[in-house]
Amino acid sequence: MACLNDNYLKLKAGYLFPEISRRVKAFCEANPETAKRLIRCGIGDVTEPLPPACIAAMHRAVDEMAVRETFKGYGPEQGYEWLRAAIAQNDFRDRGCDVADDEIFVSDGAKCDTGNILDILGHKNKIAVSDPVYPVYVDTNVMAGHTGEASEAGTFSKLVYLPCTSRNGFIPEPPKRHVDIIYLCSPNNPTGAVATRAQLEAWVKYALEHQAIILFDAAYEAYITDPACPSPVLRPPSPHPMRSGQGEGLAANSLSLPHSIFEIHGARECAIEFRSCSKTGGFTGLRCAYTVVPKTLLASTAAGERQPLHPLWLRRMTTKFNGVSYVVQRAAEALFSDEGKAQVCALIGHYLGNAKVLRAGAQAAGWKVFGGVNAPYLWVKMPQGVTSWQAFDVILGEAGVVITPGSGFGSKGEGFIRISAFNSRANAEEVARRLSALKNNHLFRGAPLAPAANPA
Amino acid sequence: MACLNDNYLKLKAGYLFPEISRRVKAFCEANPETAKRLIRCGIGDVTEPLPPACIAAMHRAVDEMAVRETFKGYGPEQGYEWLRAAIAQNDFRDRGCDVADDEIFVSDGAKCDTGNILDILGHKNKIAVSDPVYPVYVDTNVMAGHTGEASEAGTFSKLVYLPCTSRNGFIPEPPKRHVDIIYLCSPNNPTGAVATRAQLEAWVKYALEHQAIILFDAAYEAYITDPACPSPVLRPPSPHPMRSGQGEGLAANSLSLPHSIFEIHGARECAIEFRSCSKTGGFTGLRCAYTVVPKTLLASTAAGERQPLHPLWLRRMTTKFNGVSYVVQRAAEALFSDEGKAQVCALIGHYLGNAKVLRAGAQAAGWKVFGGVNAPYLWVKMPQGVTSWQAFDVILGEAGVVITPGSGFGSKGEGFIRISAFNSRANAEEVARRLSALKNNHLFRGAPLAPAANPA
Repeated sequence: MACLNDNYLKLKAGYLFPEISRRVKAFCEANPETAKRLIRCGIGDVTEPLPPACIAAMHRAVDEMAVRETFKGYGPEQGYEWLRAAIAQNDFRDRGCDVADDEIFVSDGAKCDTGNILDILGHKNKIAVSDPVYPVYVDTNVMAGHTGEASEAGTFSKLVYLPCTSRNGFIPEPPKRHVDIIYLCSPNNPTGAVATRAQLEAWVKYALEHQAIILFDAAYEAYITDPACPSPVLRPPSPHPMRSGQGEGLAANSLSLPHSIFEIHGARECAIEFRSCSKTGGFTGLRCAYTVVPKTLLASTAAGERQPLHPLWLRRMTTKFNGVSYVVQRAAEALFSDEGKAQVCALIGHYLGNAKVLRAGAQAAGWKVFGGVNAPYLWVKMPQGVTSWQAFDVILGEAGVVITPGSGFGSKGEGFIRISAFNSRANAEEVARRLSALKNNHLFRGAPLAPAANPA
Repeated sequence: MACLNDNYLKLKAGYLFPEISRRVKAFCEANPETAKRLIRCGIGDVTEPLPPACIAAMHRAVDEMAVRETFKGYGPEQGYEWLRAAIAQNDFRDRGCDVADDEIFVSDGAKCDTGNILDILGHKNKIAVSDPVYPVYVDTNVMAGHTGEASEAGTFSKLVYLPCTSRNGFIPEPPKRHVDIIYLCSPNNPTGAVATRAQLEAWVKYALEHQAIILFDAAYEAYITDPACPSPVLRPPSPHPMRSGQGEGLAANSLSLPHSIFEIHGARECAIEFRSCSKTGGFTGLRCAYTVVPKTLLASTAAGERQPLHPLWLRRMTTKFNGVSYVVQRAAEALFSDEGKAQVCALIGHYLGNAKVLRAGAQAAGWKVFGGVNAPYLWVKMPQGVTSWQAFDVILGEAGVVITPGSGFGSKGEGFIRISAFNSRANAEEVARRLSALKNNHLFRGAPLAPAANPA
């Protein structure tokens, strides 16, 4: 009698975004007029067309596939060498991070990789996630049998939840207790918070002391435009790249915002980093991401022997994956050309401009706003007593705007909403107007107005 | 202390194809002159350009991605509805198979899916594979902890190996003992054998009796050109599709060759089917496949309750996958247009023409040849006493041809080689000439010549 994986039955009824889709669909069917002017700031999906450099590269690649002499069949499962080299050089070595080409693994999504990475890890690790958290980190651990049952509040036993609140700037501190695996996401989804150099140094120190592994999700790193730490796409190549951990130059400030965990000394011995073209080049519908597994990263066998994880991930990728579409890899490569970099820079600037407009709108509604400065997400505190789903329903019903209820990301997200800045400028401006008009809505009016947040 | 997945350490040193690459590379470095005329018939990778219908569809899709109004971000993780509908209609309902659109899950590879399907199955299943076998079935079970250690011969304890030999036409019979999960691949990789309707009926009967699940890999179904059972791409749409299992018409013959397990009555209650665009449309570098999970397929919980697997696979795909590239899905859709079908038909005809040429060459070398009629692979018996890797080295060294050693697929593959028909016609003809010239090679000459095989 064939058995199923019982762990799946522990999962809550719906993954957050399908549940939102369901409510929006029901609303639109019941309110066809409002539906016509609906604006979506819920799911973090890009809206602007692909950079012209990618379009041109894809047309060329498609034409190559039409001719026997230039046709491409199976490529290396872990990505073409030219793409791995472009990534390692531009995203890491040009920033002074010591990352080799063959430590880059190209994949079809950071979501896929953050889930699949569990394949190569053991089942006895104590796992820490932040609260609120990107749901995929939790759900994939539930599926893998690393948790007990869900509580009423939606938390799973055996996981360690690290609270992220305004008190710690939504970046968790290393816990007092021992954990083996830590998921960190910076710039953060959903809160838009960005870890400082000092915060990441504390985490690397903790991980090295505990022989733990940091799973560092940097899918939104390109949104870090803090002037002390410019994004690689904004920065001309340096003739004198910094050495990892030496901390000279602009990025040495303890308050500066690292783009990569590998800017921190010691991270090569305790971290894996996930990157994506989704939110930089607008590849959500195109599918390309990459993961850095340093060859110096070890983990323990059941017998207590420490062995490198790099060969395991290579084996995983060559056995269970067949590589990213050639056409898409050529598009990803184009992101690292001079014109591609300038076009990505413009895209990021566009979305961050939206974020600024939305911040002003949410503040005009009387809400306290976090994030949205070095990140495409605003994390907005609702007035006392207003739940996330109450806010969702009113913002949908009264303003015709779809946001994401913060409670969908964990118990510490209750009372917050996430607003995505992925939109046209016209839509962002319209959403800002509609949100500011909610100032007098009965749901929000009942509570005293919160002071506007510090935009830094 | 973070732990790794110890099961990975049970895997044999190299996945078969990387090991072949290593030997070929070493050979080419040592023999640069022979290397210039090397012909690869090893890995099953297509060589001919994509169908023009796909090229046109991709150019259109790329242009859509360049304009805000037609830009596509995240699509449904399980595939766009228009593609799922085209697949369900053309590949299944037009063949009389009862498969609904939402039972189709579009993915980036059949290799990925046959590995990932284990995510939703429990750890206590008794698992059967054929011997020889496509290595991914075994390796992914090793990684998931479903096996013990490897023996000297390369077999893993706890797995049930079903011998495939010339005596059973390389299609395994259902075992006397109980198993829960059975991997079947037809047309078979590596042997090129195709299961008859009677053979699949026996397997479905067994699976229903044992509440077992058949994982049916039909990646090569389009190569079935047996006149009693034409391929869907060769057949005009029928105004009167057959009902599943009713067995009227051409496909009713017990010796006919089903394209889908769902042509067999009862399969909806015991089977999952894997399909691919790789070997039909030549998508090995483009990446698109699909898996059918019928909503009527149940498996048991730990408590013994039977529940459908369809919601689990949907949850798996929405949580750990982000869909296939929009551009690639449009290419896949084009395979089902009238011109796309005709172009696929021509591609399949080309490779099967190669197979015929290669069969003649291998027979002229004095070898007994199986497969290569309704499949793109020839499974060739070496003379008595010649091992697969001995043959590999001599065929590489003397003929400058790369084949795949049969022993790489399992102990029952020892003494065989697999020759792939994926090549240009000129190369196939040249390989046939070179193989026939091996008739007098000292390695093969020592043994009495085998009679030529029956080409049917």
